[in-house]
Amino acid sequence: MPFIQVTMGAGRTPERKERLLRAAADAVEVPESSVRVWIVEPPAADVLVGGETLAEKQARAVG
Amino acid sequence: MPFIQVTMGAGRTPERKERLLRAAADAVEVPESSVRVWIVEPPAADVLVGGETLAEKQARAVG
Amino acid sequence: MPFIQVTMGAGRTPERKERLLRAAADAVEVPESSVRVWIVEPPAADVLVGGETLAEKQARAVG
Amino acid sequence: MPFIQVTMGAGRTPERKERLLRAAADAVEVPESSVRVWIVEPPAADVLVGGETLAEKQARAVG
Amino acid sequence: MPFIQVTMGAGRTPERKERLLRAAADAVEVPESSVRVWIVEPPAADVLVGGETLAEKQARAVG
Amino acid sequence: MPFIQVTMGAGRTPERKERLLRAAADAVEVPESSVRVWIVEPPAADVLVGGETLAEKQARAVG
Repeated sequence: MPFIQVTMGAGRTPERKERLLRAAADAVEVPESSVRVWIVEPPAADVLVGGETLAEKQARAVG
Repeated sequence: MPFIQVTMGAGRTPERKERLLRAAADAVEVPESSVRVWIVEPPAADVLVGGETLAEKQARAVG
Repeated sequence: MPFIQVTMGAGRTPERKERLLRAAADAVEVPESSVRVWIVEPPAADVLVGGETLAEKQARAVG
Repeated sequence: MPFIQVTMGAGRTPERKERLLRAAADAVEVPESSVRVWIVEPPAADVLVGGETLAEKQARAVG
Repeated sequence: MPFIQVTMGAGRTPERKERLLRAAADAVEVPESSVRVWIVEPPAADVLVGGETLAEKQARAVG
Repeated sequence: MPFIQVTMGAGRTPERKERLLRAAADAVEVPESSVRVWIVEPPAADVLVGGETLAEKQARAVG
């Protein structure tokens, strides 16, 4: 019955997110029928990591 | 002071979601003034249940 | 596939918590086989409501 | 390593949300490099507080 | 910056939980320095799956 | 109506946790009557940060 919530900055491709969902489900080592995984993606301006929002980090990386 | 978070696949009507919010609030058997309930709806492609994303399940149901 | 997390102050009896789990599951109006509900109970000193911890409220109620 | 999730009704300005993220990070009194804060904003119709959705409260406030 | 919360019934060994933490961190395909994973284990009586608490399931399995 | 969940390794003193609860409540800039904050403290062995559990970090710091 494990439930796994993955919170991360928006922007992964659908393929990468699907891979992530499956790998996270495998991580718990129970039959896949009993595992549930979901992704929550707050906008980059709504996440602060190390004193900087993800939006600032992205702007810096580009600029 | 209970807080209730309901996570589910997107797609319910507003009427059904409001009914759900009220029924969940009733479930905790305290004065309604002290209960808070909210719904989080990840996109169907971002939820894996039983080894399949909700998007895959929906495509199968339609197709 | 709804997942319901109920966060509330510790102290309910097992009977009341089981009733709560079932009522919350009913609230979402889907077959019970697909619903999951769990309760998280932080200690009363670790919850602040209206500027007061639950531990303070309880001490006041008793005192 | 604290992680802080702030759930609140949608509608704050970006400036206010950024201020909130920084103030919440300061609240835990550890080096800012190790703190992560994010905001989750369910739509106003998806939040029930005191027996009323935030959408109802807002309609009442305006009307 | 992904954060992964795994909620599951109590009872895994420390070795299995550590393996789970590492596998979940690998699942997101980013440098391990930026991933955080934690496990929340509500008591078996506080989780309802398919209309039955985990405590009931365990009693049935033993009995 | 903001709800703030702070997840962090166990071990703060009650005084520090209470200070944290109040500072987090102040961070959202709304009347304190409408804010709720709570702390979730998974055991140090159940949290992985940067490829190491908090229990390993603590053992290393002591050792």
